[in-house]
Amino acid sequence: MTPLDALPLRPELRGRTPYGAPQLQVAHRLNTNENPHPLPAELLATLGEALGHAALELNRYPDRDAVALRTDLAAYLSRGGERVEPAQVWAANGSNEVLQQVLQAFGGAGRTALGFTPSYSMHPIISAGTGTAWVDGHRRADFTIDPAAAVAQVREVRPDVVFVTSPNNPTGTAVALETVTELYDATEGVLVVDEAYAEFARTGTPSALTLLPGRPRLLVSRTMSKAFGMAGLRLGYLAADPAVVDALQLVRLPYHLSSLTQAAARAALAHTDALLATVDAVKEQRDRIVATLPSLGLTSVPSDANFVLFGRFADAPAAWKALLEHDVLVRDVGIPGWLRVTAGTPAETDAFLTALGEVAPDHRLGD
Amino acid sequence: MTPLDALPLRPELRGRTPYGAPQLQVAHRLNTNENPHPLPAELLATLGEALGHAALELNRYPDRDAVALRTDLAAYLSRGGERVEPAQVWAANGSNEVLQQVLQAFGGAGRTALGFTPSYSMHPIISAGTGTAWVDGHRRADFTIDPAAAVAQVREVRPDVVFVTSPNNPTGTAVALETVTELYDATEGVLVVDEAYAEFARTGTPSALTLLPGRPRLLVSRTMSKAFGMAGLRLGYLAADPAVVDALQLVRLPYHLSSLTQAAARAALAHTDALLATVDAVKEQRDRIVATLPSLGLTSVPSDANFVLFGRFADAPAAWKALLEHDVLVRDVGIPGWLRVTAGTPAETDAFLTALGEVAPDHRLGD
Repeated sequence: MTPLDALPLRPELRGRTPYGAPQLQVAHRLNTNENPHPLPAELLATLGEALGHAALELNRYPDRDAVALRTDLAAYLSRGGERVEPAQVWAANGSNEVLQQVLQAFGGAGRTALGFTPSYSMHPIISAGTGTAWVDGHRRADFTIDPAAAVAQVREVRPDVVFVTSPNNPTGTAVALETVTELYDATEGVLVVDEAYAEFARTGTPSALTLLPGRPRLLVSRTMSKAFGMAGLRLGYLAADPAVVDALQLVRLPYHLSSLTQAAARAALAHTDALLATVDAVKEQRDRIVATLPSLGLTSVPSDANFVLFGRFADAPAAWKALLEHDVLVRDVGIPGWLRVTAGTPAETDAFLTALGEVAPDHRLGD
Repeated sequence: MTPLDALPLRPELRGRTPYGAPQLQVAHRLNTNENPHPLPAELLATLGEALGHAALELNRYPDRDAVALRTDLAAYLSRGGERVEPAQVWAANGSNEVLQQVLQAFGGAGRTALGFTPSYSMHPIISAGTGTAWVDGHRRADFTIDPAAAVAQVREVRPDVVFVTSPNNPTGTAVALETVTELYDATEGVLVVDEAYAEFARTGTPSALTLLPGRPRLLVSRTMSKAFGMAGLRLGYLAADPAVVDALQLVRLPYHLSSLTQAAARAALAHTDALLATVDAVKEQRDRIVATLPSLGLTSVPSDANFVLFGRFADAPAAWKALLEHDVLVRDVGIPGWLRVTAGTPAETDAFLTALGEVAPDHRLGD
């Protein structure tokens, strides 16, 4: 057995372990913010047809530019009111790959990315994978971004890529558009607003898509893994100035999106209403979790997502383990005193709250 | 319209154009080495079932480590005689993504890759995309690698990653295993043998898979795009020491392979014999092209692939254009005097040879 250290691995990778939440067989998996609702029957039929059709030409390379899919995604994003053109849209295998392409084009060796941690943990990991230096941006104690402090830090660090996650993962709260525009004006780099959870935001929360006109360095990324309930499909996308899409085409691997992925995503987009019907149900469970926590002597961070950061615990890893012993898998995101739970079905909420009722008295932070 | 230059793009990307063969609507597309045979009916049925089954859990993230697929790929590679374990196999969205991960782990900023050009044009492009410096290795005038010269060059450049494409694309000839072992011994970096076209090699051509035992820095990459006839699926893979797979897991994007990709690839591997039945038919057309060229006053480079590099022309781009005017799209790979044609169906060979018969008298290099 060859040890990893015997290979000529890049020095900064030595001693690292692969990213990933535990994929454990547990009754209630509430750790990766999946949508618990399987695809609706009407979509399954369309999907089968679309995939069967794609299979007939599977010996041919897919459309390298995914024009039809990008047209459908643009139509979906235009539902919000602001018109988004197909030339403004780019898609890849999960928003992770979209963000990797953004860093290849605008980050990379000798360049710097900045994000306001705690946030989506893949941002620094993908930065490292592309040789981009990473700087942690500050947040307030309540996990919100202080616009003045953030702008000052961006002016000082002068990052090439700035990440703002809204709603933020793992804390849950959406970022005010004024903060986004102030950060945009403060940076000469590109500003990525990662809106993976945007569809779950509380009513009246606007998307950064409305800020795109006139801001060619603003990129808004989305995913079909969450609200669309298609984590297994791996389809992420972004909207930006067409010049940004041109830039990403310089670094994308040719034919990166398979014919099956393109066909399945288009089938899903044709059933957008049926898919997004699960969003309100999930938000209801999220709000039920938030409303119940105080009765258990716990609290949460305001959530615009399909998850809740809850606490505080004397020892979050110990509380995580105790919940696992009650067959409920949540996520320890490494924030002392806090854990993250995915809002799922009513039955999952029942199981979570019951287990938490058992666990909370022994583990919550004392007064 | 924002010009690309107005964006804070990495300087080395400025002025570049996206990689890719023209995706033109032409009667005979013989430019991307696709397999012209659609999937056999028996596979289409299995594929429909497998995808339908995967769709039922599409709201869940895929198996991040693709264990079942890697087990099936290992079984396929073991058919050659040398046992390959699942822990030795890694898969991604096309061999392009596999190679990108290899460069992220073993190349990158401050490191160097070397390949013997002309060869697969994505090797230098993916190197650039990962910040890896690129050095062109030399070939003989007949496009073969001179082992002594290659070893000397590797000893001088000391690359971190060495690429050997066998059979070579775009020239077609397989590389002797002795050359591979000499290069392996000459480098302290990793040696990637890109065997995308291995299944088309002439009888008796051994695979570098047989060299894996005892060589932890040897990586052999393959694809399902060519012999398996599934270019639209985007499934590439490699075999190496398990430590190499561990290294790639440090840089892979989590959940990079969709549930549909994993299910479709496994369905295809369950029908390996039916899929590979097309290989002999394609080789027959290749050999027919090779045999016919002299009667047109043309020649070819010995081919172990599903394509033929043919020439010589006074002006290859002019000959390319003349063939296109006869509704035959071949590939101008940038080698003065030569063009590349994919071996396809008998009808495609007919069309190609007929068109070439018209074009050759005006375009072949004079004596």
